[in-house]
Amino acid sequence: MEEGNLFKQWKKQCLNKLDLSKKGSIDRDISHVVSLLNDSDYYFTTSSCSGRIILIDGVSDCTDVQKQNCSWLFVTHEKCQKEDVITALEKSSGDAVFKFEPCVLHVQCRQLENAQLLHSVAINSGFRNSGVTVGKKGKTIMAVRSTHCLEVPLSRRGRVLVSEEYIEFIVETANNKMEENLKRIERFYDCLRAALDPEQVNKSCLTEEQTQKKPVYRRRRKRAERERPDSDCGLQNQSENEQQDDLDSELTLFN
Amino acid sequence: MEEGNLFKQWKKQCLNKLDLSKKGSIDRDISHVVSLLNDSDYYFTTSSCSGRIILIDGVSDCTDVQKQNCSWLFVTHEKCQKEDVITALEKSSGDAVFKFEPCVLHVQCRQLENAQLLHSVAINSGFRNSGVTVGKKGKTIMAVRSTHCLEVPLSRRGRVLVSEEYIEFIVETANNKMEENLKRIERFYDCLRAALDPEQVNKSCLTEEQTQKKPVYRRRRKRAERERPDSDCGLQNQSENEQQDDLDSELTLFN
Repeated sequence: MEEGNLFKQWKKQCLNKLDLSKKGSIDRDISHVVSLLNDSDYYFTTSSCSGRIILIDGVSDCTDVQKQNCSWLFVTHEKCQKEDVITALEKSSGDAVFKFEPCVLHVQCRQLENAQLLHSVAINSGFRNSGVTVGKKGKTIMAVRSTHCLEVPLSRRGRVLVSEEYIEFIVETANNKMEENLKRIERFYDCLRAALDPEQVNKSCLTEEQTQKKPVYRRRRKRAERERPDSDCGLQNQSENEQQDDLDSELTLFN
Repeated sequence: MEEGNLFKQWKKQCLNKLDLSKKGSIDRDISHVVSLLNDSDYYFTTSSCSGRIILIDGVSDCTDVQKQNCSWLFVTHEKCQKEDVITALEKSSGDAVFKFEPCVLHVQCRQLENAQLLHSVAINSGFRNSGVTVGKKGKTIMAVRSTHCLEVPLSRRGRVLVSEEYIEFIVETANNKMEENLKRIERFYDCLRAALDPEQVNKSCLTEEQTQKKPVYRRRRKRAERERPDSDCGLQNQSENEQQDDLDSELTLFN
């Protein structure tokens, strides 16, 4: 079957399937990204999560790092309060772990070049653990992933090992990460929109680094862009000079 | 320049460069994997870490999630003792965070099919966040990455917020993760060796799932292998039925 038609068929099958996630619906804070991708002829999403703060209860004395034996005490896709965690912790009978997990998105791409474009957008938005999978039947999946997380054991065999002050602190830490996570999703959306619609190339699409620099840097960058009229808006190459023990970054990208 | 020669040139340049990591040498527990890859005509490593347990001191009240403002109080690539952490924590003047980070490996591959093979080996060994980057100049990088980590804030503005009992607990938790991490590296090495040397296809190369099952499962699997004589040793396809909110896994791999 011709490649374009095969992709369309996969897309139709996927988008018609029931949502098998625990939640059963797409997270609000990523729904615009999902819509943008699914409206394109070159992509469709196979799974998504806007990021979450969770408290899970694991089986005590179980060194198996898989999640099969965990029950969920609390979950939110927004910021949370310390009271949420304290209340949920009262239900713990095993080893409760408080976690922040950033946005994850799996996107099937029509061709490798589409995956490359999406990968570039993801990296520039701060999702530095993103990567592509190419299957034997030609299924190309781009996984949008971030590195910043939180994983904090709070109880052991049902006994809480930390103070309320500490819980307040880690809730605040998780909320800061959630805030940064949501900013990254917005950067991703803006860069993706610019990348998919060439007529919108003049709209603001700044990389993660650029949003943290002073305004004068933005003006210099725009001068450089005028000198290289064929450069893509906002799609900068990452430096190859990352230190080898920087576990967060992808090396040698689009150069 | 012909593709094979270009790859050889990149490989030579890379392997002749100085090790720019903080440590300045390849970690002992991954050196055999690195050697195996660098001995192959189809791969070379660009960065590696066998996994580590670290205590870093971040600047207080800084919501910037980047690592630039952190100092390292303690680092080890093996298991650690609670005394290591307690001693290091005394030097904290900001927000100290205790972390376990699993093995990470970046491998440049000659062609996409080489990356696909390596990806399959990585996923089957438990490195479920692995993915490929394909650059414009044809540089194909496979990043071997795992999901299980630990990130535990311990102090705020230099004040330790947890008890010694808690530190002992998280050290034990990190050590368990390090142990699982080292097992994954060994599985990866065995599967990689089998994948690169067809004559060794009869040697044991079990996936992560298989090592956790009872022996009777192994015998059934070998019967299935005899029925499918062309199947690769140990390279199983992952099920597509992973739930959408399982953030750890790659979907729709080699099918």
